[in-house]
Amino acid sequence: MSRFAGARRFVPILNWLPRYAKADLPGDMIAGGIVAVMLVPQAMAYAMLAGLPPQVGLYASILPLIAYAALGSSRALAVGPVAIASLMTASALGAVAESGTVDYVAAALILAALSGLILLAMGVARLGVLVNFLSHQVISGFTSAAALVIGLSQLKHLLGIDVPRGSLFTDVVVDVIRGLPSTNLATALVGAGAIGLLILSRAPLARLLRALRVPRGIVAPLTKTGPLAAVFLTALVVWAFGLDADFGVAIVGTIPAGLPHAGLPRFDAALWTELFPAAVLITIIGFLESVSVAKALASKRRQKIDANQELLALGAANIAASVTGGYPVAGGFGRSGVNFAAGANTPLASIITAVLMALTLLFLTPLFYYLPRTALAAIIIVAVLNLIDLRTFREAWRYNKADAVSLAATFVSVLVAGVEAGIVFGLAVSLALYLWRTSRPHIAVVGRVGETEHFRNVLRHTVKTAPGVLAIRVDESLYFANASYLEDHLLSAVADDKTIEQVVLICSAVNFIDASALDTLENMIVELRDAGVTLHLAEVKGPVTDKLQRTAFLEHLKPGSLYLSTHDALRALTGTTRAPRA
Amino acid sequence: MSRFAGARRFVPILNWLPRYAKADLPGDMIAGGIVAVMLVPQAMAYAMLAGLPPQVGLYASILPLIAYAALGSSRALAVGPVAIASLMTASALGAVAESGTVDYVAAALILAALSGLILLAMGVARLGVLVNFLSHQVISGFTSAAALVIGLSQLKHLLGIDVPRGSLFTDVVVDVIRGLPSTNLATALVGAGAIGLLILSRAPLARLLRALRVPRGIVAPLTKTGPLAAVFLTALVVWAFGLDADFGVAIVGTIPAGLPHAGLPRFDAALWTELFPAAVLITIIGFLESVSVAKALASKRRQKIDANQELLALGAANIAASVTGGYPVAGGFGRSGVNFAAGANTPLASIITAVLMALTLLFLTPLFYYLPRTALAAIIIVAVLNLIDLRTFREAWRYNKADAVSLAATFVSVLVAGVEAGIVFGLAVSLALYLWRTSRPHIAVVGRVGETEHFRNVLRHTVKTAPGVLAIRVDESLYFANASYLEDHLLSAVADDKTIEQVVLICSAVNFIDASALDTLENMIVELRDAGVTLHLAEVKGPVTDKLQRTAFLEHLKPGSLYLSTHDALRALTGTTRAPRA
Repeated sequence: MSRFAGARRFVPILNWLPRYAKADLPGDMIAGGIVAVMLVPQAMAYAMLAGLPPQVGLYASILPLIAYAALGSSRALAVGPVAIASLMTASALGAVAESGTVDYVAAALILAALSGLILLAMGVARLGVLVNFLSHQVISGFTSAAALVIGLSQLKHLLGIDVPRGSLFTDVVVDVIRGLPSTNLATALVGAGAIGLLILSRAPLARLLRALRVPRGIVAPLTKTGPLAAVFLTALVVWAFGLDADFGVAIVGTIPAGLPHAGLPRFDAALWTELFPAAVLITIIGFLESVSVAKALASKRRQKIDANQELLALGAANIAASVTGGYPVAGGFGRSGVNFAAGANTPLASIITAVLMALTLLFLTPLFYYLPRTALAAIIIVAVLNLIDLRTFREAWRYNKADAVSLAATFVSVLVAGVEAGIVFGLAVSLALYLWRTSRPHIAVVGRVGETEHFRNVLRHTVKTAPGVLAIRVDESLYFANASYLEDHLLSAVADDKTIEQVVLICSAVNFIDASALDTLENMIVELRDAGVTLHLAEVKGPVTDKLQRTAFLEHLKPGSLYLSTHDALRALTGTTRAPRA
Repeated sequence: MSRFAGARRFVPILNWLPRYAKADLPGDMIAGGIVAVMLVPQAMAYAMLAGLPPQVGLYASILPLIAYAALGSSRALAVGPVAIASLMTASALGAVAESGTVDYVAAALILAALSGLILLAMGVARLGVLVNFLSHQVISGFTSAAALVIGLSQLKHLLGIDVPRGSLFTDVVVDVIRGLPSTNLATALVGAGAIGLLILSRAPLARLLRALRVPRGIVAPLTKTGPLAAVFLTALVVWAFGLDADFGVAIVGTIPAGLPHAGLPRFDAALWTELFPAAVLITIIGFLESVSVAKALASKRRQKIDANQELLALGAANIAASVTGGYPVAGGFGRSGVNFAAGANTPLASIITAVLMALTLLFLTPLFYYLPRTALAAIIIVAVLNLIDLRTFREAWRYNKADAVSLAATFVSVLVAGVEAGIVFGLAVSLALYLWRTSRPHIAVVGRVGETEHFRNVLRHTVKTAPGVLAIRVDESLYFANASYLEDHLLSAVADDKTIEQVVLICSAVNFIDASALDTLENMIVELRDAGVTLHLAEVKGPVTDKLQRTAFLEHLKPGSLYLSTHDALRALTGTTRAPRA
């Protein structure tokens, strides 16, 4: 096996498959089966959300799962079509082609290929950390708004009304309200029934089964069959009562049987370029969702997730989707949790899911002929309702208003300007608020606590200050955006109190001083000197001192004006002659 | 005077003029006169740089100076046409009109009006601090590149060659090289003579005069007359030898005599909208230049500059320019220094300059008929050479590479993409580098120094660590972009050393924890607990603790896991029973 040593690092399947323990098989088989039962209806529903034919969702649920299983560092992540990436796909493709056309499907393949290439490039450049720049609040605001947009966009299918394909929330609201009078009653009834079934199949069914003393190991899987049950029951109803022909209920119709054909996506430089920005955003959002689910699940079993390896694995999964007739895929929140809870021990569970999806395509597609679109809409609506998250906003509002503002800004801008502009705007707002905060650092005048060597904020503690000496602590690293703020603050303090002759700037919280701030400090020394005031520095950290020693800055200070501790500085400046303590 | 109390706060002239001391008059008169001597040729030259007729520069040097004198908080700032704003004006106007047309001049008035309104709006919103986000390095890179572009753009006038009006540095280089063979020899000779005169009139003239024991008070003013001397001498040469008619030397020609007509700029919504982005950038750059000069001069006399008052004053100056036939103005670096050095005690000096400029327009314009454009080009080239600054780059490179990178990025992007895109790109690069740095904070494992209560980095000091306890200090506030970095760092440290049972996170440098980082910390507590490790916090600052108490976060910690000092934490965790010190 030694010849695989190099490859094993980047191809985890070479590690786990040869050592596969038989004891892991039952868990993997059950988990793989349950995920397949969830994935069949979801794949078709999310494809509909993306404006694509249902088989495209099924195609995206075979080879991508196997590619991720071979390369992923998570043992439980369930890859495939997901709600938000599907919505973003619809938004991106709607700009370049008409839904229902060959060009639209071809563009979906290009989008998946772009997404895969971007993920691979980020993985090679080890840029997985870039996603950290999206704060939890921005993600929460984005997800809630996207869920609202998705839910609303499915109302037309749920009610069987015909509305133009609007992309903005506000447009869709108007369209749906205008369309309400033309609701198809039969469609709406089937849809409502499906929603009822889906809701009842969760907690209420679990409660009922537990009351009937059904074993726990059977209850959990049964509660996941709701979507599949809704698919078959509604299809049965439509067929039995002839709802499609006699009452105008829209059905899925013929789904071509058989596996997808392999082939490269069409190369069209202009189209690739046009889709690139949207692909970047789909990629980032999909990667974020995948990694956060994978991390959450891995930590429960003390396993590790390597973000850069995830980039490679998800990149391979999207490339796989693009060459087998699919569209952009990611790790899904709901299915991954089910996979984990159902006992997936290794990625073999995902391979089993993929095999079951392939069998579905080969043999079961005729069963979906009478499947009403309203049932798929019901599945989507019930799934995305879980994504609407008010708690994060409430908590952020209580804890830190700026975070709540960036959440609200993202939420509103997704509704008003669309998913792509919304996420970019949210990111910009959160970064701007962070920069704004660091540009106005907390600055505290400090005094000595009793007879100790400790110095604390005069406004928060009972402390003693020394006459003629201003000891001031700045609670932020100094950089271009805040150095002038400190300068103005110090110069005003000195202008306001003419007795001050010495200023001790305590740098215990200064982790860094950039070149611009250094210029400002140099200026400040001169300005203070011109005003008859001497600046001293105390508690400058090792790495900061090291850097300062490369410059002429320390020569600007009066000799000996750099003190290790505030205590040393105050002792020297107030002439106290107490012997230094050990 | 009490009815003026409110107005006095925003109209400084109401403070200083009624109390004007006669002793201040000689200084103000001399300074006002010298600045006028510099401003006459500079105003015409910078107008040419902006692609405008020479009188526009002179018009911009009357009412704007008076408006600033009434409202400005600086006593020495000399307002008027400046080099970089003139270049940016040329770039902005070139996009909407042809130089030499009536529309071009009309657009200049709109640009000044927009700039004035933006400054006033920023002043009312007290947004003066926004300019702090441009680091010294970005400004230095921008200024050096703009100076190069300006210098090069004047070569065509200096050599009398006819090249298309390119806007990018690279285009202009090619145009000038292509045009070289068509150099007008007479023009080039006059230009070279003017440059020689300008250079000799500075340091060499000062040295000569001092050697001749001319009093210092006369030497300084005399060295400022170079540009005016160049103007008159070259005009005399052109007239005497008929260089304009016989040798094709381009001259300024007729400058309409008399004061500018007052009038509102043309209102054209589309044009105002189109010029808006450029106006924002001209405004910010002009404001930055003005405030930094004003601050530097004020600190020399222990006076204060109020950035928001400066916004109002410069806003009024630009509005004044827009209603009296001018174009965007700012506080000039060179002239302000001369104004200060020549003894300007109050803004009356600027009012005197304005009166002299008005007299020039009324009576002296015929003298400029034969003024060769090459002399104006020489004045610009010699003025901007001083703006090219290599020192800042060298120092930044030695001190902090990231700052040097943002300087170089700004410099290159101004040359390659133009002044407007260049400054925006430079700003983005500097902010991105700052964010990148804060996203990867310095994290140090610390140990006890001897028997003291001090804890230092184990890599930098000889310290003792306790078995089973990892004491780790993070040197940055925690926010969305770096919380995962800390999490990954801590989880790997714990995974790598299985003996660790306690982790003490020292927060002495954590000035802030945002909601996103708080979520990550909560996760981390659970993840560490799952791995059998307990997380403790030490030295959490008062304001941070206050905020944490508003959340359920502290309940996630084990009771008593929040220690005031690292010493307390280590004593508790290692079971040392030494009595606490006072």
